[in-house]
Amino acid sequence: TFPQKVAEALSSQYGLNVFVAGLLLLLAWAVHAVGAGRSDLLSLLSALMLLQLLWMLWYVRRSRAHRRLIRPKDAHAGARWLRGSITLFAVITIILGGLKVGYFVGFSKCLSATEGVFPVTHAVHTLLQVYFLWGHAKDIIQSFKTLERFGVIHSVFTNLLLWANGVLNESKHQLNEHKERLITLGFGNITTALDDHTPQCNCSPPPLCSAIAYGIYYLYPFNIEYQILASTMLYVLWKNIGRKVDNHQHQKMQFKSSGVMVGAALGLTVLAATIGVVAVYLIRIGRSKTKSESALIMFYLYAIILLMLMGAVGLVGIRIYRMDEKSLDESKNPVRKLDSDLLVGTASGSWLISWGSILAILCAEDHPPYSWYNLPYSILVIVEKYIQNLFIIESIHREPEKLSEDILTLRVVTVCNGNTTALPSSCPQTGGVAGDVPPQGSDAPRAANGSTCLRGGSGNEEEESAWERTPSPACCPRLFQGNARRRVLRNIAAFLFLCNISLWIPPAFGCRPEYDNGLEEIVFGFEPWIIVVNLAMPFSIFYRMHAAASLFEVYCKI
Amino acid sequence: TFPQKVAEALSSQYGLNVFVAGLLLLLAWAVHAVGAGRSDLLSLLSALMLLQLLWMLWYVRRSRAHRRLIRPKDAHAGARWLRGSITLFAVITIILGGLKVGYFVGFSKCLSATEGVFPVTHAVHTLLQVYFLWGHAKDIIQSFKTLERFGVIHSVFTNLLLWANGVLNESKHQLNEHKERLITLGFGNITTALDDHTPQCNCSPPPLCSAIAYGIYYLYPFNIEYQILASTMLYVLWKNIGRKVDNHQHQKMQFKSSGVMVGAALGLTVLAATIGVVAVYLIRIGRSKTKSESALIMFYLYAIILLMLMGAVGLVGIRIYRMDEKSLDESKNPVRKLDSDLLVGTASGSWLISWGSILAILCAEDHPPYSWYNLPYSILVIVEKYIQNLFIIESIHREPEKLSEDILTLRVVTVCNGNTTALPSSCPQTGGVAGDVPPQGSDAPRAANGSTCLRGGSGNEEEESAWERTPSPACCPRLFQGNARRRVLRNIAAFLFLCNISLWIPPAFGCRPEYDNGLEEIVFGFEPWIIVVNLAMPFSIFYRMHAAASLFEVYCKI
Repeated sequence: TFPQKVAEALSSQYGLNVFVAGLLLLLAWAVHAVGAGRSDLLSLLSALMLLQLLWMLWYVRRSRAHRRLIRPKDAHAGARWLRGSITLFAVITIILGGLKVGYFVGFSKCLSATEGVFPVTHAVHTLLQVYFLWGHAKDIIQSFKTLERFGVIHSVFTNLLLWANGVLNESKHQLNEHKERLITLGFGNITTALDDHTPQCNCSPPPLCSAIAYGIYYLYPFNIEYQILASTMLYVLWKNIGRKVDNHQHQKMQFKSSGVMVGAALGLTVLAATIGVVAVYLIRIGRSKTKSESALIMFYLYAIILLMLMGAVGLVGIRIYRMDEKSLDESKNPVRKLDSDLLVGTASGSWLISWGSILAILCAEDHPPYSWYNLPYSILVIVEKYIQNLFIIESIHREPEKLSEDILTLRVVTVCNGNTTALPSSCPQTGGVAGDVPPQGSDAPRAANGSTCLRGGSGNEEEESAWERTPSPACCPRLFQGNARRRVLRNIAAFLFLCNISLWIPPAFGCRPEYDNGLEEIVFGFEPWIIVVNLAMPFSIFYRMHAAASLFEVYCKI
Repeated sequence: TFPQKVAEALSSQYGLNVFVAGLLLLLAWAVHAVGAGRSDLLSLLSALMLLQLLWMLWYVRRSRAHRRLIRPKDAHAGARWLRGSITLFAVITIILGGLKVGYFVGFSKCLSATEGVFPVTHAVHTLLQVYFLWGHAKDIIQSFKTLERFGVIHSVFTNLLLWANGVLNESKHQLNEHKERLITLGFGNITTALDDHTPQCNCSPPPLCSAIAYGIYYLYPFNIEYQILASTMLYVLWKNIGRKVDNHQHQKMQFKSSGVMVGAALGLTVLAATIGVVAVYLIRIGRSKTKSESALIMFYLYAIILLMLMGAVGLVGIRIYRMDEKSLDESKNPVRKLDSDLLVGTASGSWLISWGSILAILCAEDHPPYSWYNLPYSILVIVEKYIQNLFIIESIHREPEKLSEDILTLRVVTVCNGNTTALPSSCPQTGGVAGDVPPQGSDAPRAANGSTCLRGGSGNEEEESAWERTPSPACCPRLFQGNARRRVLRNIAAFLFLCNISLWIPPAFGCRPEYDNGLEEIVFGFEPWIIVVNLAMPFSIFYRMHAAASLFEVYCKI
């Protein structure tokens, strides 16, 4: 047995090697390397999945056998809504697997057997993995047996490879569509050999086959999200191995939908508008030069307005936090650390693309009209993510609002009831205490002690609001402010959540102006720019989904 | 003012944006983008350096003004030998700057002024930065003023951009050499347009100019190491901002050269042999087909033997650690965390190349004779780094040996002197205590308290060894074992240190079989493989230097 740090390095290096080897096989397939075909890649992925399946079965059986032992859990990991959304994505992934089997049956004459084995293995793998994550995502594995470590890291990187495989398939598809559009628009001079992987034989019922191929294309984005979500959950499980947990009680987060009408309504409007814009964009783009240009201008204008709105809302949120200075919760928490690292890291992907656009506009010799919309759009993409990340990072490092609000209520009540003569002078003091109450400092138990009779009813929302109304209005201006503040923050979180879902749609479903506007391709050259976009775009897309997930958590916490 | 986490995100996002924008300008230059020339790139870099200069001047002046305040320091950061080696690299960087100014003067007719401004700015920047790092690398900045944070992160990413610039120049040079060799060997069919940036006019004294160009090429690797070292030191400074330091006394590490004859002699032999092999390789490669093949076979054979030796030695080191189980020091330490992350992260770069070679050999249709040497070489590169990383990570997480040895000596002495009747039964106990003494647990102060009279002389090496001899031999078998163990570990560290320095030389000075053996280029295609190698090689080279630095630290600690 190895000490923890060494065991960590032992397993992480194994995982990195699996990942790197798999990436190179993906690259070999992508560049049509001699001797390395699609079937080799699919065999490797199937083998990795089978290995993970065996390990998961072993782990599940072993923890069943030891189920009487009380084992520590990480309350922050594997939140219920996270497992819910992964289940949703997994269901779509299994449907995708079914379509792929159908595709294989249709083309079975000229496809290798691996094309059939892979989707079946993938479906079984998805099923068992979701079951595994429901039951064990919160586990804190305490034994330093290397088998656990290797199994978890193997699962992380297997899912990452499946993610990379999905991304590559999606990118090839997008690139082919883009090239077809270029051919339509008469840009035959750019190297536009289609990178086509369609099988060389005919499918038995042709309309069904094309329907399946079409369906596969629309389901891929969900599969991609599923794989990356699963690997982040497994990574948290790996980081938690051997961790010492402080028995810090974790508050159950509740989803409450009251009082966020404005945010939700605005957000849903944005969602509907985005779907409309994407539909119009996809219909018009690549049909003719004028239609393409009008589609681009429409998209840029819409995105500029939306991003400005989101940036402004985010700034309001940060401003509200600044008004009420609290020290943040800095305790160790792998989930939170991963969340904020991923936000900043994946935002860098889209910053890369945006800076490329800005540079291209500055360097280009002649500017088509839409390029002047591209400049503010690119700048706003950078600024909006910058602001949004600050808002989310501050939010997830704050203690849930409810705790301090309760303390505040109790304080005010005790001050108002117990010491009526000192009332005017004690008011600023309560305000001050509410302002910088430490999250789990010495104040919390004191407040809790002094109010055992009040506590009983404080779980009830109505009674609590009754309490809030009873003190004299002069005494509690901060209380209402705190409540109003909470409502505003929740509206902000709800609005930003829906906006991020909206902004996930365009790049995931083929509305990619970075390809279509053509300016960057002229300045950087076709190949380099395509490589940059294809490397950075998956992170940019993942950013939106991840930001939405974080904002959902923020919403539940406020 | 922002809370710490938010301030961190605020500044890191700024830094990432600067970096990403700079990278794209580098890319634009590398792919000869329309409208973005070398002068734009150099202007940007000069502007960033000037900004950093201003900030450093402000910081130095301010801390001079407040020099009476006692401020906390991170004892682990900016070790003396690290600052020494950075100074050495900085001196070479300044010489390089001088050569570049000479080059500019020679070609002044057709070079833009930025080509002259850049090296001068760079030299001044290097001078002041080394001064800054000598004085302030250990600082723990406690004020949350954003100006400090922004300044430090700006410095980190400015240095990283300068690193990327150096790497790009070096890669272009290597690629051109490689293409020239291919042309000599008659591979005209691969796209071999030389990517030449030589100015379009004649240099005034031609022999001097070519000498300067030659000199610049040999000094670049040192400049590259300087930039990355500086940015890691600045990154540690940034991570330390606002950190709470536990007053854990840091032991001064000493460089002692006694008792490592074997390791040093073997290591120096390896160093000499490597220089010889690289020289022969560079003379023979690309001259003719047979000469190239013999050079490749010679290099592979040599590297296989060396890597096997290093792997075996590393395994012995790990085995020795396993014999003596101690819990590791898991306290928070940004320097150490960065060190181990960098080891694993940069090793991934060379793993990528090695897996590419392995895949190419497995997929290739016909195998030239040297490819069968390439396979074990590539596998050994992976395995050796795997083992070496485990050894280094375990070493840097152990407390310095001396402390526990001292405790052990004192224990044995007290047991032997104080309780003579219970001597036989207490012996296994001392052994057990020595085996799992916690690094800074409750035992250390107790041992120190009970031995104030002994402590005075324990700094002296001879007296200590006299103490080690006094107890009865039956009582202290572990003690001698500990001393022999320490000697073996030190020999291992010294040997591996010199081996890593040796293995830094070949890729840094143009001995890159990944280019020259041609197999991977045939399988993956010329362009994709060149992109993979050029992206991964800088990390692979940095790995060797970084591993050497870590091993030097390990050597001093043991």
